[in-house]
Amino acid sequence: MSKKYVYLFSEGNGSMRELLGGKGANLAEMTSLGMPVPHGFTVTTEACTRYYEDGKTIAPEIEAEIFEFVSKLEALAGKKLGDKENPLLVSVRSGARASMPGMMDTILNLGLNDEVVEGIAKLTQNPRFAYDTYRRFIQMFADVVAEVPKEYFERAIDLMKQKKGVKQDTELDADDMKQLVEQFKALYKGHIGRDFPTEPKVQLMESVKAVFRSWDNPRAIYYRRQNGIPSSWGTAVTVQMMVFGNMGNDCGTGVAFTRNPATGEKKFFGEFLVNAQGEDVVAGIRTPQSIDELKQLMPEVYDQFLEIATRLERHYKDMQDMEFTIERGKLFMLQTRNGKRTAQAAMKIACDLVDEGLITEEQAVLLVDPSQLDAFLHDQFNPAELKRAKILATALPASPGAACGQVVFDAETAKEWVAEGKKVILVRLETSPEDIEGMHISEGILTVRGGMTSHAAVVARGMGICCISSCGDITIREGEHCFEVDGLIVNEGDYISLDGSTGRVYLGKISTVGAGLSGDYSRLMGWADKFRKLQVRANAETPADAAQAYKFGAEGIGLVRTEHMFFDEQKIKAVREMILAKTQTQRQKAVDKMHVMQREDFIKVFEAMQGQPVTIRLIDPPLHEFLPKEGENLEALAAELETTPAALEKAIVELHEVNPMMGHRGCRLAVSYPEIAKMQTEAIIEAAITVTEAHKDWRFVPEIMVPLITDLKELKYIKGIIVAAAEAVLKAHDSDLKYMIGTMVETPRAALLADEIATEADFYSFGTNDLTQMTFGLSRDDAASYLGSYYDKKIFDFDPFATLDLRGVGQLIERATELGRSVKPNLKLGICGEHGGDPASVEFCHKVGLNYVSCSPYRVPIARLAAAQAAIKFPRD
Amino acid sequence: MSKKYVYLFSEGNGSMRELLGGKGANLAEMTSLGMPVPHGFTVTTEACTRYYEDGKTIAPEIEAEIFEFVSKLEALAGKKLGDKENPLLVSVRSGARASMPGMMDTILNLGLNDEVVEGIAKLTQNPRFAYDTYRRFIQMFADVVAEVPKEYFERAIDLMKQKKGVKQDTELDADDMKQLVEQFKALYKGHIGRDFPTEPKVQLMESVKAVFRSWDNPRAIYYRRQNGIPSSWGTAVTVQMMVFGNMGNDCGTGVAFTRNPATGEKKFFGEFLVNAQGEDVVAGIRTPQSIDELKQLMPEVYDQFLEIATRLERHYKDMQDMEFTIERGKLFMLQTRNGKRTAQAAMKIACDLVDEGLITEEQAVLLVDPSQLDAFLHDQFNPAELKRAKILATALPASPGAACGQVVFDAETAKEWVAEGKKVILVRLETSPEDIEGMHISEGILTVRGGMTSHAAVVARGMGICCISSCGDITIREGEHCFEVDGLIVNEGDYISLDGSTGRVYLGKISTVGAGLSGDYSRLMGWADKFRKLQVRANAETPADAAQAYKFGAEGIGLVRTEHMFFDEQKIKAVREMILAKTQTQRQKAVDKMHVMQREDFIKVFEAMQGQPVTIRLIDPPLHEFLPKEGENLEALAAELETTPAALEKAIVELHEVNPMMGHRGCRLAVSYPEIAKMQTEAIIEAAITVTEAHKDWRFVPEIMVPLITDLKELKYIKGIIVAAAEAVLKAHDSDLKYMIGTMVETPRAALLADEIATEADFYSFGTNDLTQMTFGLSRDDAASYLGSYYDKKIFDFDPFATLDLRGVGQLIERATELGRSVKPNLKLGICGEHGGDPASVEFCHKVGLNYVSCSPYRVPIARLAAAQAAIKFPRD
Repeated sequence: MSKKYVYLFSEGNGSMRELLGGKGANLAEMTSLGMPVPHGFTVTTEACTRYYEDGKTIAPEIEAEIFEFVSKLEALAGKKLGDKENPLLVSVRSGARASMPGMMDTILNLGLNDEVVEGIAKLTQNPRFAYDTYRRFIQMFADVVAEVPKEYFERAIDLMKQKKGVKQDTELDADDMKQLVEQFKALYKGHIGRDFPTEPKVQLMESVKAVFRSWDNPRAIYYRRQNGIPSSWGTAVTVQMMVFGNMGNDCGTGVAFTRNPATGEKKFFGEFLVNAQGEDVVAGIRTPQSIDELKQLMPEVYDQFLEIATRLERHYKDMQDMEFTIERGKLFMLQTRNGKRTAQAAMKIACDLVDEGLITEEQAVLLVDPSQLDAFLHDQFNPAELKRAKILATALPASPGAACGQVVFDAETAKEWVAEGKKVILVRLETSPEDIEGMHISEGILTVRGGMTSHAAVVARGMGICCISSCGDITIREGEHCFEVDGLIVNEGDYISLDGSTGRVYLGKISTVGAGLSGDYSRLMGWADKFRKLQVRANAETPADAAQAYKFGAEGIGLVRTEHMFFDEQKIKAVREMILAKTQTQRQKAVDKMHVMQREDFIKVFEAMQGQPVTIRLIDPPLHEFLPKEGENLEALAAELETTPAALEKAIVELHEVNPMMGHRGCRLAVSYPEIAKMQTEAIIEAAITVTEAHKDWRFVPEIMVPLITDLKELKYIKGIIVAAAEAVLKAHDSDLKYMIGTMVETPRAALLADEIATEADFYSFGTNDLTQMTFGLSRDDAASYLGSYYDKKIFDFDPFATLDLRGVGQLIERATELGRSVKPNLKLGICGEHGGDPASVEFCHKVGLNYVSCSPYRVPIARLAAAQAAIKFPRD
Repeated sequence: MSKKYVYLFSEGNGSMRELLGGKGANLAEMTSLGMPVPHGFTVTTEACTRYYEDGKTIAPEIEAEIFEFVSKLEALAGKKLGDKENPLLVSVRSGARASMPGMMDTILNLGLNDEVVEGIAKLTQNPRFAYDTYRRFIQMFADVVAEVPKEYFERAIDLMKQKKGVKQDTELDADDMKQLVEQFKALYKGHIGRDFPTEPKVQLMESVKAVFRSWDNPRAIYYRRQNGIPSSWGTAVTVQMMVFGNMGNDCGTGVAFTRNPATGEKKFFGEFLVNAQGEDVVAGIRTPQSIDELKQLMPEVYDQFLEIATRLERHYKDMQDMEFTIERGKLFMLQTRNGKRTAQAAMKIACDLVDEGLITEEQAVLLVDPSQLDAFLHDQFNPAELKRAKILATALPASPGAACGQVVFDAETAKEWVAEGKKVILVRLETSPEDIEGMHISEGILTVRGGMTSHAAVVARGMGICCISSCGDITIREGEHCFEVDGLIVNEGDYISLDGSTGRVYLGKISTVGAGLSGDYSRLMGWADKFRKLQVRANAETPADAAQAYKFGAEGIGLVRTEHMFFDEQKIKAVREMILAKTQTQRQKAVDKMHVMQREDFIKVFEAMQGQPVTIRLIDPPLHEFLPKEGENLEALAAELETTPAALEKAIVELHEVNPMMGHRGCRLAVSYPEIAKMQTEAIIEAAITVTEAHKDWRFVPEIMVPLITDLKELKYIKGIIVAAAEAVLKAHDSDLKYMIGTMVETPRAALLADEIATEADFYSFGTNDLTQMTFGLSRDDAASYLGSYYDKKIFDFDPFATLDLRGVGQLIERATELGRSVKPNLKLGICGEHGGDPASVEFCHKVGLNYVSCSPYRVPIARLAAAQAAIKFPRD
């Protein structure tokens, strides 16, 4: 049997989203509920996929099937497409599996031509309506199918109004409309070189193709990437009998929500226009009326609509967003879907629906989109001020939040100005580890280069500081203390505002408002914590970040990046002394200084986490990151370090690497300089002893983590150093503190040999940033410049550094999990890359059976919610 | 039953190498053949492994077992260890599974103390012999077991000779020796703080431990790495009753080969010393006599030895290297093993043994070590001149051969001087693609940085040019046109000579001799070609390299690196114009120029390969490699390219990448700039049409290869471009030429998804250089600086860029092979990394079932031989 590509509304139902798209499935569902839905049919998403497979053509058998369903529709409607006496007009609308509002195309009033329009005029006794509808159709078809710019048609209408001396479209009469139709047809022919198609079946097939095509327009591609929708899904096409809201004052059209989508308040919310078609609402030519006014104007229609809306909400167990049309006093439902809403509204609606007994707590947890929490948890701009603000540029929303401050161009100035009580925005070409301190005290960070996972982005997210990256529109003028954007100069000290949730850079000051973590939020997160199986930890190394993570519900720290603890002025000096040491004695002296600093830092972080587990990663980056960049002024630094600029320069050159990401870093440093691993272990164990002696009730077990392992023998060697150092400290303190030693799995080789390596590891933490880089051979610092082509050409659907690549990187994680647990069933497994806070990736971690995810503090609530949703959707154990 | 750790010679045989080591197994074998072997036993390699596992101690049960076998040995010998009347003395010698001559330690004459020495003196009536033997023992034990430097003892002997006014050790009498013994014991105590051990069993156990320990001495580790011997094997220890070649003039000791190891000539070859112990031969105190003279001195012993030697050669079916001792006219065999030999000798011996009917052709193929061919195929220095030459430095032998020329420090000067008829050696900190032309015309290349797989090394091997890399001993003085080594200044224009096979840099001129590819070589390679299953291709892009590869027996080209074709002055200009183009028109103009050049280049390469298959890889490196480096003088270049230095600088900055190896390169360039892939395809197809029209009998099928693929959709997109371009050319030429489109598998992700990707690929070529980099996360350009620590600490046994990492990278290749063939059983599979010419890696490729390996032209014969050996050892099909 050949595949069925077309379904009548009466043949489908709400569960067939994959095949019929959201719109088609919901129209079918409403039909089966006996609601007033105009007849129609849906061409499936599979037909769309076929269209692309067949080189953007519709196969003859699918065309034949569509025509067969046109006949069925004609029978149901009692009208015929192209019939002069009793013509059927249809709408042709897109509808993907996931809602993509406004991203794809729609054609209304299809079926009109010079003869049919006369039939409509006669039938309705309303020639103005008939010709108005006809000109609307030509205009829309020309725009969507033939890509004739809308402006040409708008201009023709404007000229006609001038000629007639009127202001409103509604003031034009039937003859004017008839003239416009002729002008529009001429415009069409002028642009396309062919007559406007008069045959309704041709109109229909061209329109179906146009909707299929619109699946791949740039804004749809962008929307999909932002929302993680695969490009392989395709859109369905719904063909539905037209009903008319523009046939007189007993007609109308509107949009309504069952609850307020901004606040979540349980109050019918929406607007409508009398005597109008849907496009008029969108176009904003007339100001729509509140849905409440419909009650006065058409009380029976209002009551019927309210009853249907209430039924739909109870049926779908969620707030509904509906489109309706009233034709000569009769209500028709054209669409219903679960409504988009703000994070606040989502949480209130979820809690209210539980209180109303409509849904369970599990269902409530599933109702809130975790990624929406991101903006909610950060400060946001005052909406009123935001509307008036001038947008300077739009770039990657690298770390959410709202920030306002005076522009500075380097970390030193940032520190000076903040010390004077100013608030600053750090604007850099790109940031480097040296900037850390300046970043920490800035309100926000704006970089010209770098993607979502550049240094600036990762660090800013970790700190919960707003960041916009890859802002190529601005040009920093070196030496002039200003940047230029579109001919405008912004000087050091000028105020700008950053919205890290949208990527918009504004000129001037905008005030911000904070978020509350109680009420609906805390109720919902309580349910989430009850259901989830994954633990959620945070990546943090400063006491402030750790405290923030604890406040956001982190159950431990999954990643302390010890190198970050050295990026302040005093501490980095000790590291530099170590790097530049010429003798073993000098080196040891520097390492001893580092030892004291590390111990104090660890004590603070352990204290902040209140006895919860903390995973400390041994120093990871290549040592050159601790030195100034090549070409910088080295005189002062050399003096401070009691060496010569030449010696400093030599060290910089010697440590230079062609590909530092695959260079002398991670555990390779511990192999070259065992004294560093030894010192870090001592500091960790000493700090843990101090903390557990102060808090006798804590059962704190520090977890020491070795980065970048590729081989069992490598881990064995370093473990030897760690165990020797730890046991010596324990013996000296007569302590029986327990500690664990584990490793990052962040090279493909470690994943492939995870059974061997597990024999020496107490836990694995998947470092998915590096694992993604190496699995793809893709440098995350450089990828931003060309990944755009990959999205445009539909090669990548999403950024693999933001959402885990399940088939490649995920395959390695699954394999390593199986291998590791095959030799050590209780091996503790977690993930600590940027992906730990990405909902789709969290779902994968749950399914694979990891023990925890670890993410930046501000993403902890997101991960908690995503983990709960995964546990509800995919029960395990 | 507990494991047996000790075997009498009579319990073992020649097949037990893994357990008994080469020496132990062969002594057992000779014993079983009834040859005169002094009694003894062997402590197994497993005992050595246990020793390391147990933290460098010998477990009590193993010690007990050793003592049990001492008793057995005493019974066989009829003497007792430590017995004053009839003492047993033994030797304690190392012996690994693979021969590691001179790398580990030996102790002779063990069992002596102040009482035993008196017994020996009485028994032999030869006090001088007894005390000479005793002082030898103390000296050797102190050196090997206690690490007291030998020099101290040598000095004591020298002082004694001065005192006595004699020149030769032999002129010292028994009393002198007795005095020396006392001095030696005092020296021992002075250094160690303990008395010299008098208990023979203590001496024995200390010596066994010392031999175990010597498995891990630096020279053994280095030797293993050079020869691909795993550090996990361990050494056996052979304890054997001493026989004495130094008891008088009816005694002697020597070493002999059954054939000449330098030439392969079938003539008994060796030397011996009358009245001496083995160490005297090594020490070179007296000049040994030729083995021929033994015939005159001791005709019966000579005849017996000749008979044994002949029997051993027939038994082992290979040339033997034997050690023997004559004690009072009686011959004892102390060792036999397959002898080390030169490449020439190896080939002659293999052919002769076939002619003598002793071995089959298969066995002959197995007799020659493929890696020995490397030096053989290149020019070599005149040995006589070499001996007298001054060694300036020794570094990595990156590309074999012998080269002599005048020092130059940049490619420009190289070109100028060569144009004047000079021969030059290019000395650089490191090379870059810009240097290619200068490298090509140089006699040899010497770099300060970079490992075996640095740019210089890879390119030089490809060109068959001698190269020594990582020569940190020399310091190039920028701007002074000279380099310094150990205080010596070598100026531009001075002559130096490089031996790329040993890594030695010599001062001055040394003349060279070439190799002949006929005779035994061509006979042996003919057999190899008959047996091997793997095809062997070459990596080549110039007509000269292609012709060289063809001459060396390549069956096609597995990798044309098209970017190398642009690294000459004229051509790089077109590439730079393309990169700097501001408009589509400018870009197309530059691409058109490149098109013409590429077509001509391809025609030449295809012609050189005589119709054999050629795989052309689309342009691979990041575009910045075609631009001058940051900071260079850009004025002239900017003028030439009709742009400004600022614009050039901007392009350089924009193209800069943090990790270029994982950056905008490979197929990512084709995604960003489809016009380049299109142009290259057109040039390939046009060239193929030209060549096949000129040679109607060639069935030439060009293979177009897409690099750095990570995803099916990526390949599909690029394949679309290639197919469209190719079909258009074919149509325009009305040609029915066939072509193939395949991909590199060089990212872990491509290997993991090899089933999907195979649906669109005609062939896979494993790019093991990149695959190794990404699987380990190890940058091959940077690794040299820290891999040393990895060898020293026994984490890595070998360089994964030289020998394929079978467990990690190999696992990915195996998996990709299975996955790829599961969807496309005839998928053609090859490898084109540096590993294609490494014998161990070739064996792996054979086992996995690849179709071909591709390597640099000079390694083609090595790969052919290695492939044949793999096919003989591991039959497939």
